[in-house]
Amino acid sequence: MNTTNQLAEPVLGLNVPAAPGMTLADVSTPALIIDLDAFERNVERLRIFVKKNGVRLRAHAKTHKSADIAHYQMKHGGACGICCQKVSEAEAMVAGGVQDVLVSNQVVDTKKIDRLARLAGQARLLVCVDDLGNVDDLSTAAASHNVTIECLVEIDCGAGRCGVQWGEPVVGLAKKIAASAGLQFSGLQAYQGAAQHVRDYDERKAKIETAIRQVADTLAMLAAQELQCDIVGGAGTGTYYFEGASGVYNELQCGSYIFMDAAYQRVLDESGNCVSEFENSLFIYTSVMSHATAAMAICDAGLKAQSVDSGLPVIFGRDDVEYVKCSDEHGVIDDPQSALRLNEKLKLVPGHCDPTCNLYDWYVGVRDGNVECVWPVTARGMVL
Amino acid sequence: MNTTNQLAEPVLGLNVPAAPGMTLADVSTPALIIDLDAFERNVERLRIFVKKNGVRLRAHAKTHKSADIAHYQMKHGGACGICCQKVSEAEAMVAGGVQDVLVSNQVVDTKKIDRLARLAGQARLLVCVDDLGNVDDLSTAAASHNVTIECLVEIDCGAGRCGVQWGEPVVGLAKKIAASAGLQFSGLQAYQGAAQHVRDYDERKAKIETAIRQVADTLAMLAAQELQCDIVGGAGTGTYYFEGASGVYNELQCGSYIFMDAAYQRVLDESGNCVSEFENSLFIYTSVMSHATAAMAICDAGLKAQSVDSGLPVIFGRDDVEYVKCSDEHGVIDDPQSALRLNEKLKLVPGHCDPTCNLYDWYVGVRDGNVECVWPVTARGMVL
Repeated sequence: MNTTNQLAEPVLGLNVPAAPGMTLADVSTPALIIDLDAFERNVERLRIFVKKNGVRLRAHAKTHKSADIAHYQMKHGGACGICCQKVSEAEAMVAGGVQDVLVSNQVVDTKKIDRLARLAGQARLLVCVDDLGNVDDLSTAAASHNVTIECLVEIDCGAGRCGVQWGEPVVGLAKKIAASAGLQFSGLQAYQGAAQHVRDYDERKAKIETAIRQVADTLAMLAAQELQCDIVGGAGTGTYYFEGASGVYNELQCGSYIFMDAAYQRVLDESGNCVSEFENSLFIYTSVMSHATAAMAICDAGLKAQSVDSGLPVIFGRDDVEYVKCSDEHGVIDDPQSALRLNEKLKLVPGHCDPTCNLYDWYVGVRDGNVECVWPVTARGMVL
Repeated sequence: MNTTNQLAEPVLGLNVPAAPGMTLADVSTPALIIDLDAFERNVERLRIFVKKNGVRLRAHAKTHKSADIAHYQMKHGGACGICCQKVSEAEAMVAGGVQDVLVSNQVVDTKKIDRLARLAGQARLLVCVDDLGNVDDLSTAAASHNVTIECLVEIDCGAGRCGVQWGEPVVGLAKKIAASAGLQFSGLQAYQGAAQHVRDYDERKAKIETAIRQVADTLAMLAAQELQCDIVGGAGTGTYYFEGASGVYNELQCGSYIFMDAAYQRVLDESGNCVSEFENSLFIYTSVMSHATAAMAICDAGLKAQSVDSGLPVIFGRDDVEYVKCSDEHGVIDDPQSALRLNEKLKLVPGHCDPTCNLYDWYVGVRDGNVECVWPVTARGMVL
């Protein structure tokens, strides 16, 4: 059994739904399709925002897990690099040619730290830290591989997940990193994940204002110790305009903006309307596979074709039919007027794009009704 | 790009968590591990049941998607064959050497019907039908490939999904199948999926009794037309003892019994206790990766390491800590006594085993604390 760290090409097998040149109607279902025009407009919108606000974009690749999309974001979307969440995801991206990767997460297992240090010999590599002992382990590995690992101290600025509290704990970690062989203190990771899907604009804004204050106060304490932050990173698709205009954060980590999903579309803007700056560009293409009951159609996209953790998918462009129930391989669609026909195809807006993309091996890129490209989901299943 | 139907070997890449001979403690996380002793006992328990009740077992491979496990069930577990839900899943299983496969689902797309007919040239192949037009399409493909496709008419006996109503609609479909070139009418598919997780024993029993009556009445109507049913199939892990003892069903389609999961463990027996005939044999092995807050540990198994559609995972063998929240790559664990340490490993019982297995490329088989085997999830991601 081959268990080396050599990156294998994504397997081309029985689950390939399309090939370039086909029409959309000929794509096998369920398949993950990208409306390339909408995708490109989304990428362009955020590029303009970061340019206007004088901040960097480090696009989060945990959303798409695709080296092709990462390269597109860096070439056309103003991204200076990418974020990953796992060492194996970062390995796949570096093997796919990406040269600037932040693992926006803790890496504390000895074997994974070793993999991280190897990777730092192949690309600019940054990682988050929230534990003093972990600094020692990272330093040992970096020194043994003769590389530099850049470290961001993670602040828990309200997300209630990883990260230390703002202020002194951050300063303590930063000092230790700065004094450790093989490590470089590069700044702060301050992602307020719990604010991203808060529907109400003012409530969302208040959460980010709190985070911004904590970060600003911490930056002042670090500066007093002559600890400079190259990166003050955080923000997601639900809040980036707050961090981006704060004058405190300088690197945004949006991921979902390229695709949007039903959960993000429930987030409201200042006027109480659905946030609309990004378009749905990602769809689960599905077919009606049974319609034995007049008012109910069954489609072929169930739990193995999408993650329903953030709610059921929305049928795009249709208000006469509704996706109401999901089992392993089936979706139940209310079809009160019996409008759907067997084999009819529908586009579903996934409830939550990130874990949905992770189920597929391929993105089918579509423009003007034709398949233009089939991109591998490079880091699909890379959870280690 | 290779888009032929040739089965590729599962990719050996960066997401391989273990190799045979390692200790469990050395397995990289998150990983899907099987307690082989518990798994084998589960397989043996159902083998004894079907033998005692004089019914067949056609184990559902949608749970595990593994050719290794399918072979084990057929060799040691009394299974006469397997069920699959998708054509691509069936292709992967046939390529893996399984020779008797029921696609327990409708196949209505022309290209998929063609793949199904090709497959019928390589193995005994059965499929479910609930549409008269579909019978024509299946017949055309079978005739053109010069094969026989066996058809089961699917009855919606309460699940509210695919299938026609019992009685006349079934007879009409059966007659048409029996008269169609390349097709053979082989019986009924009558899976009451909506009963499987009904917690209360009597309520669950009543649902299956209704299904049994509908099936028995339909069988009488078919017999009056001299249409014999080789297979009367259905049942799952939550209800198999009803169908298995009914004298009406003759082929059980249990899947989850090999692994169990938290959702099935909430199902109650006659005395109001948790059903206990099967053991937890499947776990998500996870590590504590952050513990910056005393009463909260963060583990490395989130939404990309499990499906939470049926609830959060349960931490196996621990009542001092609780998995309370799940995001893409993280699990939040309440740890009021600060009992957990960084890098400590835990076993999670997944909320829902089927879609969880579909996220992984490998099963890590463990016995006596050592990795005995690493089995590919042969049909992982095969949704077409």
